[in-house]
Amino acid sequence: MTEDAVAVGIDVGGTKLVAAAIGADGTVIDRRRTTTPAPRGDRNRDAAERLVATIADLATELGPGLPVGVGVAGIITRGRLEYSPNLSVVGVPIEQELVSRLGVPVVVANDATVAGWGEVCAGAAVGVPDVVMFTLGTGIGGALVLGGRPVVGTHGFAGELGHLIVEEGGRACPCGNRGCVEAYASGTAIAAMATEGLSATDDPSILRNHERIDGKAVTEAAHAGDRFAAGILRHAGFWLGVALASAVNAFDPALVLIGGGAAPGAAEWLLPAARAAMGPRVMGHTHRQLPDVALAALGDDAGMVGAALLAVSTERLV
Amino acid sequence: MTEDAVAVGIDVGGTKLVAAAIGADGTVIDRRRTTTPAPRGDRNRDAAERLVATIADLATELGPGLPVGVGVAGIITRGRLEYSPNLSVVGVPIEQELVSRLGVPVVVANDATVAGWGEVCAGAAVGVPDVVMFTLGTGIGGALVLGGRPVVGTHGFAGELGHLIVEEGGRACPCGNRGCVEAYASGTAIAAMATEGLSATDDPSILRNHERIDGKAVTEAAHAGDRFAAGILRHAGFWLGVALASAVNAFDPALVLIGGGAAPGAAEWLLPAARAAMGPRVMGHTHRQLPDVALAALGDDAGMVGAALLAVSTERLV
Repeated sequence: MTEDAVAVGIDVGGTKLVAAAIGADGTVIDRRRTTTPAPRGDRNRDAAERLVATIADLATELGPGLPVGVGVAGIITRGRLEYSPNLSVVGVPIEQELVSRLGVPVVVANDATVAGWGEVCAGAAVGVPDVVMFTLGTGIGGALVLGGRPVVGTHGFAGELGHLIVEEGGRACPCGNRGCVEAYASGTAIAAMATEGLSATDDPSILRNHERIDGKAVTEAAHAGDRFAAGILRHAGFWLGVALASAVNAFDPALVLIGGGAAPGAAEWLLPAARAAMGPRVMGHTHRQLPDVALAALGDDAGMVGAALLAVSTERLV
Repeated sequence: MTEDAVAVGIDVGGTKLVAAAIGADGTVIDRRRTTTPAPRGDRNRDAAERLVATIADLATELGPGLPVGVGVAGIITRGRLEYSPNLSVVGVPIEQELVSRLGVPVVVANDATVAGWGEVCAGAAVGVPDVVMFTLGTGIGGALVLGGRPVVGTHGFAGELGHLIVEEGGRACPCGNRGCVEAYASGTAIAAMATEGLSATDDPSILRNHERIDGKAVTEAAHAGDRFAAGILRHAGFWLGVALASAVNAFDPALVLIGGGAAPGAAEWLLPAARAAMGPRVMGHTHRQLPDVALAALGDDAGMVGAALLAVSTERLV
């Protein structure tokens, strides 16, 4: 099963955990999917132990002796999980514990970071040295690859592009701040803006049939021809475009990728609006080539693929 | 004069041009100051020729045979000056022309980029791998050093941190967009906000004695105890802090430097306000160490020193 695999990649999300043996070109050779060990009670050490054991077991099963890359939905500082809103685990040296247990090279990084690296190695950004990726899901994550290297910053917090502030004092963001782009263009924000819009207007919409609206419902309604829903997605795309402009002014990438679970379904409305808002807001836009804004290619596999390929890369996290 | 010099550094501003032979530790050994050749008429090629000749003459005079680093107030793409609002020169391969003329290694980069590199090599950020610098002057420039490397992006536009958008649809920015932090915290913006504030209120201020207010007048008034002027600087600092939060969320630097001609005089009001605004706006601020926000150390020499040290560095622009 693993004759062509070069590494095992594991993507630890808040609720699900996917893993695979990965080939040198990013091919998924053998995959597993399970639920992320749920916190029981409040004992951090027990939760951490279950998480490390689950990862180690999958790595041994999928690619005994192979390097292991792990992406985690949380803040990783030099291989140590410092903070994760979803995993109830803080301050755990995951990388070091996996190395001790498995005796192979291990790299642990933020899930969005490895997803971006996956797109650069085997997805929509192959051969592009400067790439910025926004991942749209429940929240908005981000990844930076600059000069061909994955950038994570001094404490592993770099690329938190969902928290680029687009409107000081604006919509409340789950991070506690106001006006972050996550509060305008995440799946959660799209659902909230749709709910608020329907309360405030008499606009007809099939979304009025829903007891509780989520981002998926808005996208499905737009696909069914619902003009109100399409308008909400365009509005989210506008604000995403404002954040893209800030990101382009900061990083000057050749390519901006939009990934994450919410992106493909909403792309038809989101991407044109984002491009239209971004263009005139980029500094010197009349004197430069604007980056392409494109959908990521690897979908839910990006993190798993990128984590594996990071484990065997000569590039280090910067 | 030049026995200890390792390179010549030249900083080409919109109006003035400074140059020096620089030692390995950033010491300024021998310096010259002149005016930037002014455009005469509209012949780009003549203006470019005068600019290149001025730089080449200074390099030969200050350090014959030494590598030369040049910072230019404009957009440089791989050694080519693509766009400069102040120099009336576009599309000129300055680096290549200087190499041909001087027969020594030459590196040409954006003035803010080399100033940031100067601070990292010999100023306020020595030994810090991840640094973001905002330079406050007529406008707001920026520099990024990530993983110990100066980052310029795909086309040389990276680090245009004055054009981080802090308030979509807000104050008009010279770049043509609205709501960029440059429109709130540059010297020009500080002067404009003071002028507007005095028209709109009856607040007493010694600035009412000025026929035309500039940023320097506001800073001087604040130092003289003028509460209105101090309030304007704090307001500018607040907005700078919003942009710092976006920059910290994007880059996760260990240190944020505030440089440029307007910074030292206004620091007493600007920096505390910027730090206070930044802190609560940084994602996960309760779970992480916030970067220091400090004044740059090299003042007007930063660009010249950084350009010279970039010319002899093993690090390339990324």
